Amino acid sequence: MKELPSLTLLIDSFSKLPGVGVRSAERMAYAVLSMKDEDREEFSKAVLGVGSKIHRCPICGLYMEGDKCPVCTDSTRDQSVITVVSEYKDALAIEKMNSYHGLYHVLGGLISVSKGIGAENLRIDSLLSRINGTVKEVIIATNPTIDGQTTGLFIAKLLESKNVLVTRLGYGLPMGGSLDYADSLTLTKAFEGRKKI
Amino acid sequence: MKELPSLTLLIDSFSKLPGVGVRSAERMAYAVLSMKDEDREEFSKAVLGVGSKIHRCPICGLYMEGDKCPVCTDSTRDQSVITVVSEYKDALAIEKMNSYHGLYHVLGGLISVSKGIGAENLRIDSLLSRINGTVKEVIIATNPTIDGQTTGLFIAKLLESKNVLVTRLGYGLPMGGSLDYADSLTLTKAFEGRKKI
Repeated sequence: MKELPSLTLLIDSFSKLPGVGVRSAERMAYAVLSMKDEDREEFSKAVLGVGSKIHRCPICGLYMEGDKCPVCTDSTRDQSVITVVSEYKDALAIEKMNSYHGLYHVLGGLISVSKGIGAENLRIDSLLSRINGTVKEVIIATNPTIDGQTTGLFIAKLLESKNVLVTRLGYGLPMGGSLDYADSLTLTKAFEGRKKI
Repeated sequence: MKELPSLTLLIDSFSKLPGVGVRSAERMAYAVLSMKDEDREEFSKAVLGVGSKIHRCPICGLYMEGDKCPVCTDSTRDQSVITVVSEYKDALAIEKMNSYHGLYHVLGGLISVSKGIGAENLRIDSLLSRINGTVKEVIIATNPTIDGQTTGLFIAKLLESKNVLVTRLGYGLPMGGSLDYADSLTLTKAFEGRKKI
């Protein structure tokens, strides 16, 4: 009995997703195979949809759908604070604690020697250009990992010449952990305990 | 910060797959969001591909791609034995042992009171119509569960009037397993099915 090329292709696609092994990918592919046509089309459209409908805000780098960034265009938010995060989902985690009302800046990654990602690959220039008279504080909220701390220190160094307070999140975050997995209370403690770099 | 409808849609789609929780679905959706356009299109096409390119063999019910069933049209296979399975992947598991060379019949499910699946929802009529003079043995290889056994007994009953040997797979200890981990029912079956050494 030969393999089914279309099925193999789908198993490969699923395998590329984070946390999905071959066995799980197979189960998912079989589930898609036995779906109704309309469900499969809906799934396929949903995959394309995130690409065609969602794009990054040109100012802060958050993902947005439609023509207005939900944070940058919200005049009720504190325009004097910018929190710098690595990825969109980190900002989402911060939003969940419901006590931060400033702005964001998404770097789109972290400086990483092992992955060959340098400062030039990140949205750092656009962060610097946002530091005008209005912004009083930049909170570095990169992951508490080697790469996250390296990136944070690098940005703090660049901001030294600017007239702005640079802080980082406090040690409420477990070292080596991932920011988007932190619970709201831990995140709140981390915000309260932020230190000047 | 509002949710992104397109992202929520994709998270929902992933959540419907077997073994995928909300957290995993979120991670997968974000991975799709940060994919390159061409990778996303490939994924989307792969999802549709299994629907448009793969269909069931009208005779045995195995999935096939193209116009020939790889088993039914293989004249080197033993035409006198049909193994009855619930799903395609069960046939695939049997193929992996590399020692079965007969035909298959895929029921497309199991009789289940709790799920409201009756005999009329399964491919049982088409199995009966295949029992002509050529077929000498029908091996029932449904799962060793309540539903699997009910379905197996139901089919065996229907085949009583036909001139064909009906067998089922042996029950007992799984190879490589540990006796003290075996459940009582499995052990009972193993005792019942003991063989002279």
